[in-house]
Amino acid sequence: MSLIQPAGFTASGIAAGIKASGDLDLALIVNNGPRYDAAGVFTTNRISAAPVRWSQTAIQDGQARAVVLNSGGANACTGVQGDHDAAAMADHTARALDIAADDVLVCSTGLIGERLPMDKVVAGIATAVEALTDDGLVTAAKAIMTTDTVHKTAQAQGTGYTVAGMTKGAGMIAPGMATMLAVVTTDAVVDSALAHELLTEAVRTTFNRADSDGCMSTNDTVLLMASGASDVTPDRDELQALLRTVCGSLARQIIGDAEGSTRDIAVTVHGAATEAEGEDVARAVTRSNLFKTAMFGQDPNWGRIISAVGTTDAQFDPTTLDVAVNDVMVCRNAGIGEDRSLVKFDDREVTVDIYLKAGDHAVTVWTNDLSYDYVRENAEYSS
Amino acid sequence: MSLIQPAGFTASGIAAGIKASGDLDLALIVNNGPRYDAAGVFTTNRISAAPVRWSQTAIQDGQARAVVLNSGGANACTGVQGDHDAAAMADHTARALDIAADDVLVCSTGLIGERLPMDKVVAGIATAVEALTDDGLVTAAKAIMTTDTVHKTAQAQGTGYTVAGMTKGAGMIAPGMATMLAVVTTDAVVDSALAHELLTEAVRTTFNRADSDGCMSTNDTVLLMASGASDVTPDRDELQALLRTVCGSLARQIIGDAEGSTRDIAVTVHGAATEAEGEDVARAVTRSNLFKTAMFGQDPNWGRIISAVGTTDAQFDPTTLDVAVNDVMVCRNAGIGEDRSLVKFDDREVTVDIYLKAGDHAVTVWTNDLSYDYVRENAEYSS
Repeated sequence: MSLIQPAGFTASGIAAGIKASGDLDLALIVNNGPRYDAAGVFTTNRISAAPVRWSQTAIQDGQARAVVLNSGGANACTGVQGDHDAAAMADHTARALDIAADDVLVCSTGLIGERLPMDKVVAGIATAVEALTDDGLVTAAKAIMTTDTVHKTAQAQGTGYTVAGMTKGAGMIAPGMATMLAVVTTDAVVDSALAHELLTEAVRTTFNRADSDGCMSTNDTVLLMASGASDVTPDRDELQALLRTVCGSLARQIIGDAEGSTRDIAVTVHGAATEAEGEDVARAVTRSNLFKTAMFGQDPNWGRIISAVGTTDAQFDPTTLDVAVNDVMVCRNAGIGEDRSLVKFDDREVTVDIYLKAGDHAVTVWTNDLSYDYVRENAEYSS
Repeated sequence: MSLIQPAGFTASGIAAGIKASGDLDLALIVNNGPRYDAAGVFTTNRISAAPVRWSQTAIQDGQARAVVLNSGGANACTGVQGDHDAAAMADHTARALDIAADDVLVCSTGLIGERLPMDKVVAGIATAVEALTDDGLVTAAKAIMTTDTVHKTAQAQGTGYTVAGMTKGAGMIAPGMATMLAVVTTDAVVDSALAHELLTEAVRTTFNRADSDGCMSTNDTVLLMASGASDVTPDRDELQALLRTVCGSLARQIIGDAEGSTRDIAVTVHGAATEAEGEDVARAVTRSNLFKTAMFGQDPNWGRIISAVGTTDAQFDPTTLDVAVNDVMVCRNAGIGEDRSLVKFDDREVTVDIYLKAGDHAVTVWTNDLSYDYVRENAEYSS
């Protein structure tokens, strides 16, 4: 299925030679207006990368006309020189497009602690500007891949406008080194304050609930850019729903592309007293290595699930917990339920449902299993 | 080296048939007085096992005359029946010893969610009482092993008294399933209030800093029993130091016996503003799967270390962080330091030193690497 690129945007992806492999490694997305509203959600890691710091400053006015992204190097932990390099990426892009440098956002992904080959990056930017097209978003998505095995895009159609996005990341394989980057574009008319509000909410319930190892990388960035080229001011709820759909699809694609994993696991907490407590409980489970290895072993080990639940402060009665794995209620009242041998692991997707019976809130967090290949990938990957 | 069993104690370990393998699986330690002071530190997991609940109640008066321990079954998540079974273990032990049931503590370890074979346990208790000897502590230590490859004991000599203990657990291999149990005995005169105070402090800086996956199991228990048989009232500081030595040795033995691991890693945070902040930072690193897999891959990946540090709220300047791996300062000022290829991984022991430069506190947390065998052990272990 081809991707419909929202009106007002051009994009490209090229091989600048940053990756030794010669694969695509530099992407450019340009908003040609008439509006240039933009919003960003950035890593909360205090050791943020230079491009994150640049983009956080550049987007403060709610305006951005382009984003330049590279794979093959994170430009993180590179000191003052890294800040200069990120600024230079924005500057060279701005000159080539005849816009202001502070209207250019920058994203980088790849190895931490090494300078980018700036001669190649600068030459690549010129090439990427030349390559801009009305349907370049898919190629841009390919140019930001690192350990990804497939490129990742998603779109949703609104009433007279389109939302389309791209992302990179490979689930629990490589958070912290391979970074999650995403750019979402729309031709709707959205002022930057609303863009920020809607993007933040969409990220909260999508990317932020695709739990890897619980910590954001130095480079994680999600951007929303709105051209207004459709001349349609969307219904707020509709646009929120579309952003959730697109971000949700992109987040699920990241989980699905976790190369080292064999299972995509949805941990749903039912009957939480608050949404925050539901999320705490779900994350306690999705972060348990014992749970994740059990899933790899196709073992519906409910003891490890309720042990994880028991470490939280969420409201529940420890004697009335129920847990289902793939719809078999293996644990009832925190004790033995249905015969665990009834649980089938025929599909890649696994569901774990935890019933707290303390309220009306339900929260789902996605994760993967912990496999030999996860260890291999991350043991052999060089910093 | 043989273990000196403190005066006043008898102990035994026997095969009751709880384990299908026929290995030793039931242990008994009896305090013959003249004093019966006791203290316990228990799991904070809200899904605590029946023997934990029994022992927490039984020890409230600060007195205990015996502890009966079994491997081969955790008696966790076994409902009201589990509570009856734990009480029955205490009751049968008490009758055989002619003491009160609430002076008997109970510990269990093994599979969660299955009843103990109580006929075998009851018969085993009678056998264990018959087998009590003045030098049975080592045999008792063997009888509480699960995934442990070696039994674990430690001792320290005070001025006129002895502290000796045993433990079981296999590092990060199996927290939550294999449980950490420890019993420390002394013939010093220690009233129960002081025993509780000194044990809590010793556990805080030893067992609680041997970090596995960050959550206590349903059964974790550390007990201290003091017979007063030496008639020596120890210097408080000396006794505290001895308890730290014994608990520290036992905790290190657990880390060293993590079968799936190839490295014992000491993460030390220097210059923390407070001890709590230092511990937070150290734990953020020891809980990072990316860090642990890098250590398995012999990769001094400082980017993953400072990314983990960056997720904490501890006081530090993100631009002045230094990190050394095996004494090579691979990261200076949160950027590239010494050549990482200088880091040697010749020994099983690896040191990671993180310099926050925010105060005077130093904290060390121990962990293991994350290896193929960790995944294998935990994927194949049946709940």
